[in-house]
Amino acid sequence: MRQIETIRWVGHCDGVLDILDQRHLPGRVQTLRCRHPQEVFEAIATLAVRGAPAIGVAAAYGVCLALRNTADSTALDNARQIVSETADDLASSRPTAVNLFWALNRIKAVSQTVNTSTAQLKQRIWDEAQAIDRQERDSCLSIGRHGAPLVPDGGAVLTHCNAGTLATTGIGTALAPLYVAHEQGKRFTVYADETRPLLQGARLTAWELTQAGIETVVICDSMAATMMQAGRIGAVFVGADRIAANGDTANKIGTLGLSILARHFDVPFYVAAPTSTFDNTIPDGSAIPIEQRSADEIRRFHDVLIAPPSAGIDNPAFDVTPARHITAIITEQGILQPPFTETILAVLTKRSMKTHHNQGK
Amino acid sequence: MRQIETIRWVGHCDGVLDILDQRHLPGRVQTLRCRHPQEVFEAIATLAVRGAPAIGVAAAYGVCLALRNTADSTALDNARQIVSETADDLASSRPTAVNLFWALNRIKAVSQTVNTSTAQLKQRIWDEAQAIDRQERDSCLSIGRHGAPLVPDGGAVLTHCNAGTLATTGIGTALAPLYVAHEQGKRFTVYADETRPLLQGARLTAWELTQAGIETVVICDSMAATMMQAGRIGAVFVGADRIAANGDTANKIGTLGLSILARHFDVPFYVAAPTSTFDNTIPDGSAIPIEQRSADEIRRFHDVLIAPPSAGIDNPAFDVTPARHITAIITEQGILQPPFTETILAVLTKRSMKTHHNQGK
Repeated sequence: MRQIETIRWVGHCDGVLDILDQRHLPGRVQTLRCRHPQEVFEAIATLAVRGAPAIGVAAAYGVCLALRNTADSTALDNARQIVSETADDLASSRPTAVNLFWALNRIKAVSQTVNTSTAQLKQRIWDEAQAIDRQERDSCLSIGRHGAPLVPDGGAVLTHCNAGTLATTGIGTALAPLYVAHEQGKRFTVYADETRPLLQGARLTAWELTQAGIETVVICDSMAATMMQAGRIGAVFVGADRIAANGDTANKIGTLGLSILARHFDVPFYVAAPTSTFDNTIPDGSAIPIEQRSADEIRRFHDVLIAPPSAGIDNPAFDVTPARHITAIITEQGILQPPFTETILAVLTKRSMKTHHNQGK
Repeated sequence: MRQIETIRWVGHCDGVLDILDQRHLPGRVQTLRCRHPQEVFEAIATLAVRGAPAIGVAAAYGVCLALRNTADSTALDNARQIVSETADDLASSRPTAVNLFWALNRIKAVSQTVNTSTAQLKQRIWDEAQAIDRQERDSCLSIGRHGAPLVPDGGAVLTHCNAGTLATTGIGTALAPLYVAHEQGKRFTVYADETRPLLQGARLTAWELTQAGIETVVICDSMAATMMQAGRIGAVFVGADRIAANGDTANKIGTLGLSILARHFDVPFYVAAPTSTFDNTIPDGSAIPIEQRSADEIRRFHDVLIAPPSAGIDNPAFDVTPARHITAIITEQGILQPPFTETILAVLTKRSMKTHHNQGK
C-alpha cells in the first residue's frame, strides 16, 4: 500500500537523511539529501517536508545528523549540549504542530539518560529517532484500521490539505482509514480540497491517492459547501497539528470552515491523529500558537503577481476547530468520542502507563 | 469615485466597444477593442469582461457591433434577423447570470418595435444599449446610497469575488455601499476573499478598492471562517448573478459557504444587486443553471501543473445561497427584507409599472 518514501534514513547512526522534496510535486519527484541539521531545519521551514507526524520524525533524525558531524572523541557533556541546542533550534522551525516538540523532547530525554560515551549517545539517539519513526508508522496503520469502518462504501468523502503518506512515515492519518477501506474493497470517491495557498490537497493528496488507485476529484476550497449541499459528501476526514486537552483541534487553515459546513449539512466530521498530537498542557484551542506565513505565498504564484502590492495580506497557516464540531477523533489507540476532555485524558493516561511499563522492563 | 472604464462605447452608433481586459489585471491594464459581436462573445466567455451587470451591457453593445457591420441598404427584416441571431448567440456565452438575458431581451424587444428602416433600427438599438448601460450605472449609485448605512464605521467587512466597478459600468453592486460609505468618511477594512480558481478577489477587488484608497486585505477563501471566529468581520457584502422569486441567490462559487459561516457567527450577510438580477420566472434556486467551467482553470496555474492528470476536477463557477441565509438584498429601489417572496414581487411590480408608465409617455 505504501511505496512513497517521505523520509528515509540511509545507513547506520552516522548515515544521512533523504527527504522527498514535496515543493516540486506533482510535477517532479526529487529527493533532498540532508547531512546537517540546518538542512533539515530549512526543509521543515520551507515545507519540503510537512505534516505534523513527518516533521516530528524529520526533526528527530535532524539531531542524529548533528551527532554524525560530532567526533566520538568529543566530551559527552559537549555532545549532550549539541543534542540540546540542535533540538531547541529544530523546535523553532515551525510553531503549531506539537508532534515536533514531542519528538524532540523524547530525544532530549534520552540524551539525559546516557552517561557512558559520545559514541553511546549517538547510538541511543539514533535508536530513539528510529523508534519514533516506527511508532508513527505503526500509529498510521492502527489509525487506518480503527477508522476504516467509518468510511462509507459508495458515495464520497472529503479531505483537506494532506494528511497522508506524505505527511507521515506511514500511510497517513486522515487518509489512513481511506487506504485501509480501499484495500478492504470499499469503493468511494475522495473530494480533495486543493488547500490554498500552498495547494497540498491538489498537489499532494490527489497525487498519492490516485497512485494508490483511489478515485480522487480536486475541488477549490470554496466548493466544499456546494458538494455537501448536493448530498455528495458522506464524511469529512482531516488530520491535526495539535489537539488541546478539551479536543479543540488546530489543523490547516480552512478546517474550521469545513467543520461548520459539516455541522450545517449534518455530515460526520472526523479528526485522525496519533496521540503524539495531543497537547494536554493546554486546556483549549485558544492557547495554540498559530503560525503566520509569508504574504508572498498568497500574493504571488511562482512569478505571477496575483494581488496588487497596494493590498495587505493575512496568511495564518492554521485555524482552530472547536471540539463540539468534531464527531470523533481517530487515534492509534482507538476512536475517541465526546466528551473529549474525558476520553483524551483516558487515552493519554493509558499511553503514559504503557510507556512506564516498557521503561520498567 | 469611478475612474476605471470597464466597458466604453467609442463613437456613435457605428462605433466600437472598448473592454478593459480583466484577465491581465492586476499586472497589466490593457484594453480589448471589439469591432465584431464574436469578439464580445469571446470576451464574455473567457472572462475578459465578467460580472453579471457588465456582461449584460457588453452583450447589448455586441448587438450594436453586428449592426455596425450591416449596410443601411440591408432590408429591415434581414437586419432584424441579424439582431435576433446575434442576441441569441451572445446569450449562449454564459448560462448563469440573468442580466445577460434581460439586456438581450430588451434589445430584441426594441428591434420588434422598429418598422421604418435599417438605419433607424441601428439608432434605436444603440439608444437601448446606452439606456441599459446608463441604467446599470445609475443602479450602482443607488445601491451604494441605500447600502452605505449598513457598512460599519470601524472594523471590517468581507467580500467575495468582484462585484465592483469591474463587474458593472458603475461603482459596483456589493462594493457600491463600501465606496459610498468611504466617501461619507467611514473608515473600515475590507477583507477580500481571493476567490479561486480565477482569483477575482485578489486580482480585481483588491486592485480597484486600493485605487480608491480603501484599506484592503486579501485572504484565501478558506480563511474567512477564522476571521469571523476572531470577531473581525462586521458584515459580508456579495453580489449576485441571478436571484430566484423566493430570494435564493446564485453567485460566485464560495458564496454559499460564506453565508453558512455568517449564520454560524451571527454576521449580517448582504446581497447587493440591481433588479435586473431578479428572475421571477423561476420559483427557487434549484432551477438556476450552474455553469461548469474548464478543469484547467483549477489544474494549471499559467503553465504550472497544480493537480496531477490522474485526478478528476470539478469546477462549478457558481453556487446557490438559500434565501434564509440572506439578511437583506440591497437593490437600486431600496433594501429588501425577508420574506423575499413578497418584497421581490413588490419591487418587480413597481419596476414594471414604472416601465409601462415611461412607455406610455
